[in-house]
Amino acid sequence: MIITISREFGSGGRELGKRLADELGIPCYDKEIISMIAENQGFDENYVSYISETSIRETYPVTIGNHFFTTGLSYATQQAIKINAEQTKIIENFAKQGDCVIIGRCADIILKEYNSFNIFVYAHMDAKVKRCKERNSENESWTDKELVRKIREVDKNRAKYRSIYADTKWGDRENYNLCVNTTNVEIKTIVPSLAQYIKTWFEQNK
Amino acid sequence: MIITISREFGSGGRELGKRLADELGIPCYDKEIISMIAENQGFDENYVSYISETSIRETYPVTIGNHFFTTGLSYATQQAIKINAEQTKIIENFAKQGDCVIIGRCADIILKEYNSFNIFVYAHMDAKVKRCKERNSENESWTDKELVRKIREVDKNRAKYRSIYADTKWGDRENYNLCVNTTNVEIKTIVPSLAQYIKTWFEQNK
Repeated sequence: MIITISREFGSGGRELGKRLADELGIPCYDKEIISMIAENQGFDENYVSYISETSIRETYPVTIGNHFFTTGLSYATQQAIKINAEQTKIIENFAKQGDCVIIGRCADIILKEYNSFNIFVYAHMDAKVKRCKERNSENESWTDKELVRKIREVDKNRAKYRSIYADTKWGDRENYNLCVNTTNVEIKTIVPSLAQYIKTWFEQNK
Repeated sequence: MIITISREFGSGGRELGKRLADELGIPCYDKEIISMIAENQGFDENYVSYISETSIRETYPVTIGNHFFTTGLSYATQQAIKINAEQTKIIENFAKQGDCVIIGRCADIILKEYNSFNIFVYAHMDAKVKRCKERNSENESWTDKELVRKIREVDKNRAKYRSIYADTKWGDRENYNLCVNTTNVEIKTIVPSLAQYIKTWFEQNK
């Protein structure tokens, strides 16, 4: 039972993933992945986070998994390749260890062969702005307009980041088993029925 | 509790809608809508079906709901307008009567003001071809290639038909509360958890 969560920024996808893992009694991997990459590769966590949250496509010559030539690549590109290779290894190891929820990090693509249940979490812009403000008091000082810009930017980078791993588009329904709109929904209330849905799905997709 | 179902052809959306209605103990409106339009307007059912399943956009000058001039319109266009006006009336009446599931017919757009729960049902092409064959023995004589073409054509027409009613795109996740991928899923198994999800949603969106 491997569940991946992809999500729009501010949609509550992380909360949904964590609560789903609790409901199902399985581990949830989120920021742990960044920490492990940082530790294993001797990078700073913020740097790993930066490389994966901002677009690395510009410095990144080819789709991961294809054959590529490392000669003549810039230092930043070499590090990006290292980080992504490490990420793939870590995520595959999680999957091999057993049932889990993995948030973000293109886990749906990395675990394509693992028969994972892939969820995409999204919401209307107004709902995302509201959630951002409630979630983080730091965001309270931001104007709505600034938050909208931030949300769009993060999502744009997520889409770009995904495009390194796959030709299919971030957020396109066909890449996911279920797309959940969290507008006007308190996440914790929908988790039991989602968990039930997922259990049923896995009974048919062992 | 008004639930609308939009769906890709062959995804099992109709079955899902009917079973969901049974589970929730509420009526499901599907082909009844066509029959009622035909009866009320004195058209033949097949004609009503044809007008709504094939693209009427070409003969249809303006977005429904906008002001339009009927002078000088072709007979076909006038009939299309009549049919769509009747459809809107019938669907709104269903919604006014109480809880129900409505399949297709742009009900999600027509009932925008009714706080409906909108589902989009989809599946991978292989799964849709398989379902088409299982569902209808008539389809057994079709080659896979022919079925793929048919599925694409029906969906293209559904997308076009929707574009008469709304600027938003058929199948785009933001138009729906939940997008359900039925690939490798037996519809009846997922209905109880979906019903639970929907009940929870309506508790928060009265």
